[in-house]
Amino acid sequence: MQAVTLPSFGGPEVLTLAEVPDAVAGPGEVLVDVAATAVNRADLLQRQGFYSPPKGASPYPGLECSGVISGLGEGVAGWSLGDQVCALLSGGGYASKVAVPVGQLLPVPAGLTLVEAAALPEVACTVWSNVFQLAALEPGERLLVHGGTSGIGTFATQLAARHGAVVTVTVGSAAKAERAIGLGASRAVLYKDEDFVKDGPYDVILDNMGAKYLARNVEALATGGRLVIIGMQGGVAAELNIAMLLQKRASVSATSLRARPLEEKAAIVAAVGAAVWPTVAAGEVRPVIDRVLPLAQAAEGHRVLEESGHIGKVVLQVTPSS
Amino acid sequence: MQAVTLPSFGGPEVLTLAEVPDAVAGPGEVLVDVAATAVNRADLLQRQGFYSPPKGASPYPGLECSGVISGLGEGVAGWSLGDQVCALLSGGGYASKVAVPVGQLLPVPAGLTLVEAAALPEVACTVWSNVFQLAALEPGERLLVHGGTSGIGTFATQLAARHGAVVTVTVGSAAKAERAIGLGASRAVLYKDEDFVKDGPYDVILDNMGAKYLARNVEALATGGRLVIIGMQGGVAAELNIAMLLQKRASVSATSLRARPLEEKAAIVAAVGAAVWPTVAAGEVRPVIDRVLPLAQAAEGHRVLEESGHIGKVVLQVTPSS
Repeated sequence: MQAVTLPSFGGPEVLTLAEVPDAVAGPGEVLVDVAATAVNRADLLQRQGFYSPPKGASPYPGLECSGVISGLGEGVAGWSLGDQVCALLSGGGYASKVAVPVGQLLPVPAGLTLVEAAALPEVACTVWSNVFQLAALEPGERLLVHGGTSGIGTFATQLAARHGAVVTVTVGSAAKAERAIGLGASRAVLYKDEDFVKDGPYDVILDNMGAKYLARNVEALATGGRLVIIGMQGGVAAELNIAMLLQKRASVSATSLRARPLEEKAAIVAAVGAAVWPTVAAGEVRPVIDRVLPLAQAAEGHRVLEESGHIGKVVLQVTPSS
Repeated sequence: MQAVTLPSFGGPEVLTLAEVPDAVAGPGEVLVDVAATAVNRADLLQRQGFYSPPKGASPYPGLECSGVISGLGEGVAGWSLGDQVCALLSGGGYASKVAVPVGQLLPVPAGLTLVEAAALPEVACTVWSNVFQLAALEPGERLLVHGGTSGIGTFATQLAARHGAVVTVTVGSAAKAERAIGLGASRAVLYKDEDFVKDGPYDVILDNMGAKYLARNVEALATGGRLVIIGMQGGVAAELNIAMLLQKRASVSATSLRARPLEEKAAIVAAVGAAVWPTVAAGEVRPVIDRVLPLAQAAEGHRVLEESGHIGKVVLQVTPSS
């Protein structure tokens, strides 16, 4: 099969399409002929050597994909050869084939192409598990989403707005602000010019900046507020004002999907299939795709994310006809 | 009525027993003739001028009491004159009478004297709301309780051990360690000589130290661990290692009871009545009382807490015959 390999760590140019041994479906796994995958920030870290795949995962990047089931491992039930699926992966999406634990498979939502479906698993599982399961966002509550036009941001905005939450996002440009409002945000804060704290407080904050925003995030929390950190683009350690946290009876959580054990991933994927997929099939929540590039241009996809000019997901098409 | 007043802020000597106007039960409140109250660390902070009573609360210290209902405010149902009760208070327990919102009343558990019952409301509500509701401690999980022989610590240890959790405590002396083991702790770490991190990890940590322990608490958390901070005896701000928190998919919460709105307090009190009171009545969980002093010796009670030589609660008896 073909896969994007990492002969060395470094800039986008190290991503190298190569012929590699075929992936093999182990017990409880299916083999998927990959139609498309998508670029996540974790892929950029992996490429730079800062994020080793968890034990047992594929060495190739790619945390999600869509495609067609072409093989069934031992003990697999409920899925058939030829099924169109999308999947949350521990790695290996940047390839023509990938082995997927059945608990991480989802059907392609009705009305979506395989290319569109490849843009969903990571954002849907991340947003659902963090904003709805962990932070338990309630209708009428105020949600702040940093990086409002990222893949995560565009999905969180749509899903939370549909849920009846009041969504504020931070964005880097007026064009992004307009797009975020179109997706359901009540307000878009231009973080280069404005302080998101003054538009608060917020019951839930979904943060991708880590250290850089910690103090202001805590300051912006409402009484009973929940700050959920899912990225550390602004650093890994910062002072926590415990007195303010206590006064607000608030919490700071930090999570990631990739390292979770299989059963936790399966539980999240199942919840997403039950709670989120119907809203996608109904057209109420849609994948937002910045661009679709061929897998051979994965390096370009990484550059797009690094420059942060995109809105929504960068998808890599593996099978040209999908 | 008599009350311990604060003519000025300062050391224990400022606590002054004085004749003051009687408390009055407003709508939805009952008047309680106080039999006993107990000393909490928050009382020490209030005495020093660091912790103003919330709006509408009594100006006198005292966050819990036991006694007999001697008056019923407008709209009170379900309680009668003469009922023996204990109560969570927003203040005013250091007095011969106190007005209590009905949602904060609990019956005196079967088999307990009024003096014993005065030692329960704060620890029971604090431990239940933090360890069981917020952190959702499960049977088989590992709990670390800092200050294992404090009022909170002795109650958390008993309740968590009975719940099937494996309890480790930190304590300041071998005598306290022995007492903690007797209450159900599996292990007592002498914090002056040993590092509690090495005995971890812990699924839940109940912390009263704040800043001083933050880094080591996060280090000691297990994957999916929950750190709950309910005191800041070791300072109010410290560096948070977000990367470690994220790698562990862990959380840091901080809470207090006193400033919560009436309906939240009532919900906690009701849950404590349903879940904790039966275990007290059955003798499975008991109040641990270091000593009982007359209300006129409140200053001595404060000194005992400040010297940290006590094990369990310091109770102040208001009605000599109770």
